[in-house]
Amino acid sequence: MMTQVNRQIVLASRPVGEPKSTDFKMVESVAREPETGEVLCRSIYLSLDPYMRGRMSAAKSYAKPVEIGGVMEGGVVGEVLSSNFSDIKTGDFVVGAGGWQEYFTLPGTSLRKIDSERAPISTALGVLGMPGMTAYVGLSNIGKPQPGETVAVAAASGAVGSVVGQIAKIKGARAVGIAGSSEKCRFVVDELGFDDCINHRDPDFKEQLQKACSDGIDVYFENVGGPVFKAVLPLLNQFARVPVCGVIAHYNDTALPEGPDATPLILRSALVKRLTIRGFLVFDYVDQEAEALEQLTQWVSDGRLKYREDFVSGLEAAPEAFIGLLKGKNFGKLLVEVSPYDKA
Amino acid sequence: MMTQVNRQIVLASRPVGEPKSTDFKMVESVAREPETGEVLCRSIYLSLDPYMRGRMSAAKSYAKPVEIGGVMEGGVVGEVLSSNFSDIKTGDFVVGAGGWQEYFTLPGTSLRKIDSERAPISTALGVLGMPGMTAYVGLSNIGKPQPGETVAVAAASGAVGSVVGQIAKIKGARAVGIAGSSEKCRFVVDELGFDDCINHRDPDFKEQLQKACSDGIDVYFENVGGPVFKAVLPLLNQFARVPVCGVIAHYNDTALPEGPDATPLILRSALVKRLTIRGFLVFDYVDQEAEALEQLTQWVSDGRLKYREDFVSGLEAAPEAFIGLLKGKNFGKLLVEVSPYDKA
Repeated sequence: MMTQVNRQIVLASRPVGEPKSTDFKMVESVAREPETGEVLCRSIYLSLDPYMRGRMSAAKSYAKPVEIGGVMEGGVVGEVLSSNFSDIKTGDFVVGAGGWQEYFTLPGTSLRKIDSERAPISTALGVLGMPGMTAYVGLSNIGKPQPGETVAVAAASGAVGSVVGQIAKIKGARAVGIAGSSEKCRFVVDELGFDDCINHRDPDFKEQLQKACSDGIDVYFENVGGPVFKAVLPLLNQFARVPVCGVIAHYNDTALPEGPDATPLILRSALVKRLTIRGFLVFDYVDQEAEALEQLTQWVSDGRLKYREDFVSGLEAAPEAFIGLLKGKNFGKLLVEVSPYDKA
Repeated sequence: MMTQVNRQIVLASRPVGEPKSTDFKMVESVAREPETGEVLCRSIYLSLDPYMRGRMSAAKSYAKPVEIGGVMEGGVVGEVLSSNFSDIKTGDFVVGAGGWQEYFTLPGTSLRKIDSERAPISTALGVLGMPGMTAYVGLSNIGKPQPGETVAVAAASGAVGSVVGQIAKIKGARAVGIAGSSEKCRFVVDELGFDDCINHRDPDFKEQLQKACSDGIDVYFENVGGPVFKAVLPLLNQFARVPVCGVIAHYNDTALPEGPDATPLILRSALVKRLTIRGFLVFDYVDQEAEALEQLTQWVSDGRLKYREDFVSGLEAAPEAFIGLLKGKNFGKLLVEVSPYDKA
């Protein structure tokens, strides 16, 4: 293979509060030929996900931050250009931690092959990828929705929330979504089949949510935090479960919000209602990945699990799209089309 | 039986903030003869426990509040004076929800017989009663301490905390207590065998706690809330468990404390560290009661589980003792000696 210019987006500076486009920088390097056990891929779709805000920060978290000058991390669906790994061959489609760049070279063991016949390859970053599996393992292991129970989830038109509500329905529970526009709410009810969806920007959001959850809330799948959590807390039923997979409302916070301090309310609610509040990452359930993927794929094939993707075009569009994601500007799973799918 | 005057302490008014002695009132009624299936008892020991503050309040909780003018609820060890229940006979010692009064009449099915040969009957309200079982089921079902892990517990010289730390030691974990005086801390380490105990009234409490938990905290048995919770939160390890059985620091609160609001910190910590924060009541595990009691009794017999009781004398002493309990004035399981044990 000839020397191939590889455009990359690196972290230029650690954001304070909301990331700015100048916190990112486009650089050029050269695609690296694969060594033994490695695979070289062309990036087709780059996934943009809220967790990336954490990687831009030096604060201690479950994963190491991206270094200043380092390529932004991210899941990528790519086409294999060259392989020194026995189970993957040129022309295969794979998903892995490719990062924000046009080409990536990774150990074959870190990549998952995608069956492009079974579902569009982009879904390996959404409904059939990390977000879909996050919904699946969070509900299977912590939320455990029972028939007739009420499951509430925010960012309900998003990559995780949309799957949460649909699985809840499949399990016989009632699904109430929360989203950031009336258009998104309509989609959540009309297309995804949730029982109800409330716009958290409405001034009477709390009252609407209470009405939509007239039997209380048995599972609150927490992916936003902020005022939504506050509105949900008094509606939680005895023995409710709160899987926590994200708090996007706080990722840009530079300090704790003003008081009063609701800590005693949270602890007292946990006690009086015997709540289970439990954080998790999809990686904690790596042994359930195959089962989750098979089940999700089956549901997608059967038309029981729908999804919506929101594409932006070109690697250079990634920073602005990511900044928008943290403000809820996307509508569906946000993906960057780095290079055309059908290109050779 | 002759007509027997029964002194009772009733709820005179709902306290605002700290209960006052005028929130209680001593009244006299007449001991009621047992009907079919019922048992009449003379109260020997009345248990005073933090949960009673909740019963004095009209706020919604897991149990109904005591009515104004109603007898204060409470666990009591009594001697049976007269029984119309087949499994219980005159002279037996029993424990049940007798309330703050000198005599009580209850269905036999709601009483548990005490074997006075195996342990002092007062222990049926402490280490071998509700507090001891709270520690046991909270650790068995939620805390699950593993050998080498660190278990932290506040009110460590109290009825629940003292058992939590000693079970942690039995399970091979490290036990770090938190208590409200240096005298209590010495007792917790020297008598109960905790590895360390920190006085939360010391100005450098946070630093001391951090030093005592140099490997972090894997189980924090939450029974106080307040500043202790705040000090513990940053020390919690990944996958730490936080069984919540009480928040005594907040029972007298009339409003939420001033900010900042730590809610985002709690949720973010739950996520990043994959914490499990879970409220529970001993009554949720009623099916484990027999097993818990047998195990605790065995440990007491073997000298592996020690306890300390703090007696006050006479029913009239109960209100002041209870008010002091909420401020940590007691030292060990607080009991009211309502009538002498050896009286016929």
